[in-house]
Amino acid sequence: MTSQKEPQEGLSAPAKVTGPSSWSRVSCPCCISSHIEPLVLIQLAENIQPITKQWIMSVISAPVKAGGAQLLVHPGEDMKGDMIVVAAPRCTLLRVTEDLGLCKTYQDGNMTAFSFEDRDNFCNIDDMQQFLTLAERQYIVKHELDSMRAREDQRIPGIPAPKGKLKARESILQKLEKAGVIRNITPLHKQKLLSALGKQWYSHKSLWGQPLDSIHAYFGGTIAYYFSFLDYYTLSLFPPAILGLFITFFLPSANFSSGNKTESAPAPPKDDDDTPSVSSYMVQAVFSMLWSTVFMELWKRRSAALSYRWGTFNLAEQFQEPRPGFHGELGTNPVTGRLEPLFPEWKRRLRLGLVSVPVVGVFLGLVVMGMAGFYFFERLISNWHKASGSYFTAVLLYLPSIAHIVYTNVLGNIYRNVALKLTEAENHREESSFDYHHTTKVLVFTFFNNFAVLFHIAFFKEDMPLLRKRLSSLLIVTQVVNQFTEVVVPFLVDRFLTSADRNLKEDDPEVDHLQAQGSLPAFPGLFAEYIELLVQFGYLSLFSCVYPLTAPLLLLNNLTEIRTDAYKLCKLFNKPFSAPVANMGVWQTAFEVLSFISVMSNCWLLLLSPRVKDLTEDAGLSSSKVLVIAVIVEHALIMVKMILAFMIPDEPDWVRIKREQIEYHSMQALKKQRIMRSRVEDKVPLKA
Amino acid sequence: MTSQKEPQEGLSAPAKVTGPSSWSRVSCPCCISSHIEPLVLIQLAENIQPITKQWIMSVISAPVKAGGAQLLVHPGEDMKGDMIVVAAPRCTLLRVTEDLGLCKTYQDGNMTAFSFEDRDNFCNIDDMQQFLTLAERQYIVKHELDSMRAREDQRIPGIPAPKGKLKARESILQKLEKAGVIRNITPLHKQKLLSALGKQWYSHKSLWGQPLDSIHAYFGGTIAYYFSFLDYYTLSLFPPAILGLFITFFLPSANFSSGNKTESAPAPPKDDDDTPSVSSYMVQAVFSMLWSTVFMELWKRRSAALSYRWGTFNLAEQFQEPRPGFHGELGTNPVTGRLEPLFPEWKRRLRLGLVSVPVVGVFLGLVVMGMAGFYFFERLISNWHKASGSYFTAVLLYLPSIAHIVYTNVLGNIYRNVALKLTEAENHREESSFDYHHTTKVLVFTFFNNFAVLFHIAFFKEDMPLLRKRLSSLLIVTQVVNQFTEVVVPFLVDRFLTSADRNLKEDDPEVDHLQAQGSLPAFPGLFAEYIELLVQFGYLSLFSCVYPLTAPLLLLNNLTEIRTDAYKLCKLFNKPFSAPVANMGVWQTAFEVLSFISVMSNCWLLLLSPRVKDLTEDAGLSSSKVLVIAVIVEHALIMVKMILAFMIPDEPDWVRIKREQIEYHSMQALKKQRIMRSRVEDKVPLKA
Repeated sequence: MTSQKEPQEGLSAPAKVTGPSSWSRVSCPCCISSHIEPLVLIQLAENIQPITKQWIMSVISAPVKAGGAQLLVHPGEDMKGDMIVVAAPRCTLLRVTEDLGLCKTYQDGNMTAFSFEDRDNFCNIDDMQQFLTLAERQYIVKHELDSMRAREDQRIPGIPAPKGKLKARESILQKLEKAGVIRNITPLHKQKLLSALGKQWYSHKSLWGQPLDSIHAYFGGTIAYYFSFLDYYTLSLFPPAILGLFITFFLPSANFSSGNKTESAPAPPKDDDDTPSVSSYMVQAVFSMLWSTVFMELWKRRSAALSYRWGTFNLAEQFQEPRPGFHGELGTNPVTGRLEPLFPEWKRRLRLGLVSVPVVGVFLGLVVMGMAGFYFFERLISNWHKASGSYFTAVLLYLPSIAHIVYTNVLGNIYRNVALKLTEAENHREESSFDYHHTTKVLVFTFFNNFAVLFHIAFFKEDMPLLRKRLSSLLIVTQVVNQFTEVVVPFLVDRFLTSADRNLKEDDPEVDHLQAQGSLPAFPGLFAEYIELLVQFGYLSLFSCVYPLTAPLLLLNNLTEIRTDAYKLCKLFNKPFSAPVANMGVWQTAFEVLSFISVMSNCWLLLLSPRVKDLTEDAGLSSSKVLVIAVIVEHALIMVKMILAFMIPDEPDWVRIKREQIEYHSMQALKKQRIMRSRVEDKVPLKA
Repeated sequence: MTSQKEPQEGLSAPAKVTGPSSWSRVSCPCCISSHIEPLVLIQLAENIQPITKQWIMSVISAPVKAGGAQLLVHPGEDMKGDMIVVAAPRCTLLRVTEDLGLCKTYQDGNMTAFSFEDRDNFCNIDDMQQFLTLAERQYIVKHELDSMRAREDQRIPGIPAPKGKLKARESILQKLEKAGVIRNITPLHKQKLLSALGKQWYSHKSLWGQPLDSIHAYFGGTIAYYFSFLDYYTLSLFPPAILGLFITFFLPSANFSSGNKTESAPAPPKDDDDTPSVSSYMVQAVFSMLWSTVFMELWKRRSAALSYRWGTFNLAEQFQEPRPGFHGELGTNPVTGRLEPLFPEWKRRLRLGLVSVPVVGVFLGLVVMGMAGFYFFERLISNWHKASGSYFTAVLLYLPSIAHIVYTNVLGNIYRNVALKLTEAENHREESSFDYHHTTKVLVFTFFNNFAVLFHIAFFKEDMPLLRKRLSSLLIVTQVVNQFTEVVVPFLVDRFLTSADRNLKEDDPEVDHLQAQGSLPAFPGLFAEYIELLVQFGYLSLFSCVYPLTAPLLLLNNLTEIRTDAYKLCKLFNKPFSAPVANMGVWQTAFEVLSFISVMSNCWLLLLSPRVKDLTEDAGLSSSKVLVIAVIVEHALIMVKMILAFMIPDEPDWVRIKREQIEYHSMQALKKQRIMRSRVEDKVPLKA
C-alpha cells in the first residue's frame, strides 16, 4: 500500500464530479445530460506525464469510428493527476447493451434482446439508471475500454519507445497495463446504495432470504449467481443435516460399525443382517445420491429462471468481438461478416487434447507421487527412529511432513502459472470459454490436492476410523481457519491499520471518496469461494456416510459464510467488475461431476465397510463375485440417477416456452426479411 | 394374399393415369399442369361402397380450409374400384415443404429453409420433380393425408354407425384404417428410376460406393441414412479386420492364452510378462476402444454433412402440427399460436420415469430370471440323468432348452405390445420422439436378450474358451441364417409363387402396374436391419479381444448385406414412406452407449483373462487391490475416450459456420422485424 496518497491533497479542488463541468464533451446530441454519473475509476502510476494522461483521455473519449471508446472522461481534481474518472453517454450504453445481447423488458412485458434501432419500444429507456443496472453500466464501460484497439502503428506520448510502441490492432488498455501506466481500474461504489444493500444483506436479523435482485443490480451477474447458489445450497443442506443428526443421535449403533473393525471376531449372529450399522450406511449412501441429484437438477431450473429474470438467457458471445487476448490471422468472420482475428477450432481442440490434458495429467501424477513419497519416507524414518531412538531421528520424524508441505506448495505455484500459460496457448475466442478452461484446470488440481489423501485412506488403506477422524478434523479445523483468515484478519487490518484514510464523512470532497475506493485491495475473485463450496460438497457427497455429522456442520458453516462473504465484498475489497452471465459456468459442471463420482464413491465405501465385508464372507461369495455385484449395483444406481435427472427438466416450462417463442419468431422473421429484401432489390439476384 | 385381383380385369379401361383426365380438379390456377404425377396409392377394402370411396376422394381433394388435404385424386381404372391414386398440386407441395422446415438451394447457393412467400428465389422452383425428390413428394402426400381431421362430428357415408362415426378433430385417416376401409397406403414406384438405381446400387461390379444421393432421392431420409451408415461402417471395419487377421495368423500364441486355462500349473517364467497372449489382449482392447470412439465421432461429422446436403438440418418438428396419435386438452400453442392439443412435458416425463422405465426394468429382470431358471433346471436335470440314466430323463434333458425358448418368445411378444402401449401412453407430440422412445424400449430388450448369455459366460462363469466358441458360432451361424431368411426365402417366394401376377411389360396398362405394386408385402422397417448392425457392433466392441476373427467375419457379412438389403428394398417389398430426418436418431445414441460399455467390458475381460490373473497373483496383489487398479484403469480409459471424442468436433467446420450464420441472421432479422412492425403500427402499443 505504498502508493496511497493523503486524501487531504485533493481538498484544494473540491469540484463536483457529477456535474457536466470538466467532463469531456459528448459527441452526439441525444446524450447531453445535466447529470453525469461517474462509473469507473482509472488509477495511473504516480510518475505519469500530463501528456500521457491527456492522450489516454482523448482515446477514451474519441468516437468508436476513430478507434476510441466513445466514453466520457474527467481528469479528477487532485494535484497529482493520477486519476481518470470515466462515465458513459447514453448512446454508448445502449449500443453495447445490444452488442452484449442483453435482454430487457419490451413494451409487451417480455424480456427481449435489446435492439438499438428499436429502443423506443423498451421500457424505462429514458432513464439509464433504471434501464441498466449499476453493475451493467460499469461492465459496459470496462467492455468498451477493453475493446479499444490501436488503428495503426503508433507511439504512446510520454512513454519511452520499447514500452510505448503500439502495433496496429493491439489492445490499448492491455498495453498500458503492461507498460505500468495504468495501475488499477475499478468500478466506483455508490455509498448510499451500498449501505442500503448491506443493511438488507448481512446486517438484517432474519436467517433467510438474501436480496438477490439488489445484489445483481449492484454487483452484477457472476457475484449474484454465487450468492444465489450459496443461498440455495444452504437451504438444501437442511434435509441431509436432519438425517445426519438423526443417525448420529437416534441410531447409536451407526458408529459401532466403523468401530468394530479391530474386533476380528466374527460378526454378531446372522439374523441381524439389517442391523442399523449396515442399513444406516445404506440409507446415507442412497439418500446422498438422490439428494445430490435432485439438488443439482432443481438448481439448474432455478438458474434458468434467474437468467431469464436478469435478461442474460440470450447472450451470444460467439457473435461478439473476441476477447482482448485473442490472436489469430486477420480475416472476415464468416458468420457476422466482421473483420477480426480468426483461429481454427480444430487447432484449439488439438492443443487442448494433446498438450493441456496430458500436462495437467502429469501434474496430477506429481501430486500422487508426492503423497506416495511422503508415506514411504514417513514409514522409513519412523522405523529408523524405532530402531535407533536417538534425538537426531526424532527431529528427522518431522522431515517428511515438512518436505511434503514444501513440495505441495511449490508444485501448486508452478501449476498455477502453467495453467494460465496453457489456457492462453489454447487461444479461446470468448472470455467465458477462457475462464471456463482456466478455472477447470486450477479446479481439478485443487480438488485433487484436497481429496487425494482422503481417497488414499478410504480405498487403499481402507481404514474407516481414520477416515472419520480426518474428515471431522478437516470439517472443523479448516472451517474455523477459513473464517478466521478470510474475515477476521482483513477486518482487523481494515479497522486498525487503514481506517485513518477512510473515515470520510458525506460532506468530504468527492475526490477523497474516489481516492479511498482505489486504496482497498483488489477483490481476489470467486474462485476461492466456489472451491470452498465444492470441497464441502465433496466431503458431504463422497464420504458423508462415514461421518453423518458432515451436513449439520456444513449448514452451520454456510449460515455464517453468507454473511461473512457479503461483508467482505461490501467493505473489505475494491468493488470488482462482474460480467452478465447466464449460469455458474464451470462450477455447475464441477458440482455435477462430483455428484456422479459420489455414486461410485458411496458404492465402494459400502462395499469396503467392515460389516458388509463380513456379510459377504458369511454368504460365501468369492471376491470376484462381490466385485461383479458391486459393479452392477454401481451402474444401476447411476441409471437411477440419470433417470431422475431426466425426469426433472432443466428449465421451468415457462422459460422453455419463452425460449422457443424467440426461436420460432426469429425463424419466421428471417423468412420475412428475405422476402422484403428480394422485393426491395426488385429481383436482382443476391449472390453472396 | 387372398385379396389380390386378376390383373386382366383392368384391361377394360386402359386410361392414362398421368394425364389430366379424370383427376380431381385443381383448386388454384398456378397448379394447373398438363402432366400429373401419381405419387401414392391408397388401397381400399374390397367391399367398399362407391359412396364411401367418393366421400374419401372428396375429402382428400378438398382445400385445407374445408378440412381436406388439398391433393389430387384419381379413382383408378379398374372395375372393382378399390384403388385411389393420389397426386399433389404444386402449391400443396410447396406449402408443406415450408411446414416441414426442409431446406432447399437458395439463389445464393446456400441451403436455406424454404419459404412459400419467397419461393421465386429458390432454385428449380418451376420444376417440382427437380425441386423436391420423389421421396419428399410422396412423404408430403402422406403427411397431408395424415393431417386430415374431421371438422365437426360427422358420419362416414356408407359405413355403419359405430365404426363410421367421426368426432371433431379426429384423424380421418386413422379412423378409416381402424374401420378397415383403407387396407394399405403405398408410395408408387417409378420403374425406370428404380431399375436405373438398382443397376447403380446392387448390380454394379465395384465393391464400394453406393449411390447415396440417388437412394435419398428415391427412397428418402431414413433409408438413405441407414445405407450411408452401413456403407461407412463397412469401410470402417477394415482396420479392425486387418488387426484381427494379423493377431490370429501372425501371433499364434494369442489363442494359447485362453487355452491354458485348464492348465493349472504356474505360468511360464516371469520375464515374458509381455508374452503376446497378454499383449495381444491389451492391443485388441485398447485398439477396440480407440477405434469405436473415432468411428462414432467421424460418423457424427459425416451425418452432419449429409443432413446439410439433404436439406434436413433445420427441421423444427416442435413447431409443426403434432403427430396424429397425439392427444391432450385443446389449447393455443404458446409458441406458434396455433390451436392444437396440448400436453404438459412434466406429465410425460413423470410417466416415462415412474411407469415406463420400471416396467422395462421388470421385463429385463424377467429375462435374467429366465436365464437363471434355465441354468438351474439344466443342471438339476443333467444331474438327475447322470444319476438315473433312463430314457425318460434323456428326453427330459431337452426340456429346459425348450421351455426357455418358449418363455423367451412369449416374453418377447408380450413385451412388444407393452412397449407400444407404454410409448403411446407417454403421448409424444412429435413423430420422431415417439419413434425414439418406442425404438429405445424394443432395442434395449432385444439387446439384453442377445447379450445376457454372453455376459453371463464372460463375467459369472468366467469361461473364456466357452465365450470364444459361443461368439464364433453366433457370428457364423446367425449370419448364414439371417442372410438366408432375409433374402433367399423371400426371393424364392417372389420368383416362384407370386411371379404370375407381376411379369408385366412396359406396355401393359398402367393400372396393372399399380395393382402389382400394392400386392407385395409391406416393408418391415429398418429396426431389424439396425439391430443386426448393433448386435454385430456389440460382438465386435465388447468381446472381440476374445475372438479376433470377429472383425473379418463382420466385414465379409456387411459386404453382402449392403447388396441383399438393397435388393430386398427394391424388389421384394412395397416401397415404404420415409421421413426426412437429420440423423440416425436413437441408433446413433445406441452405438455410442455401446462403445462406452465396451470400455468397461474390455477392462473386465482383461482383468479376468487367466494370464493377467496369474500375473497379479505372482505380483502378490490382493484381490481388492487388483479391483481398485482395474477401476482406476477403466476410468482412465473412459477419460481418454472422452478427450478423444471432445477433440473431434461433431460437425465439420463448414456446417457449423452455416448453422451459426442462420442463427445470427435470424437474430438480426427478428430485431429488424420488430422495428418494422412498430413503425408500421405507428407507435401503437402492441400488448400481446
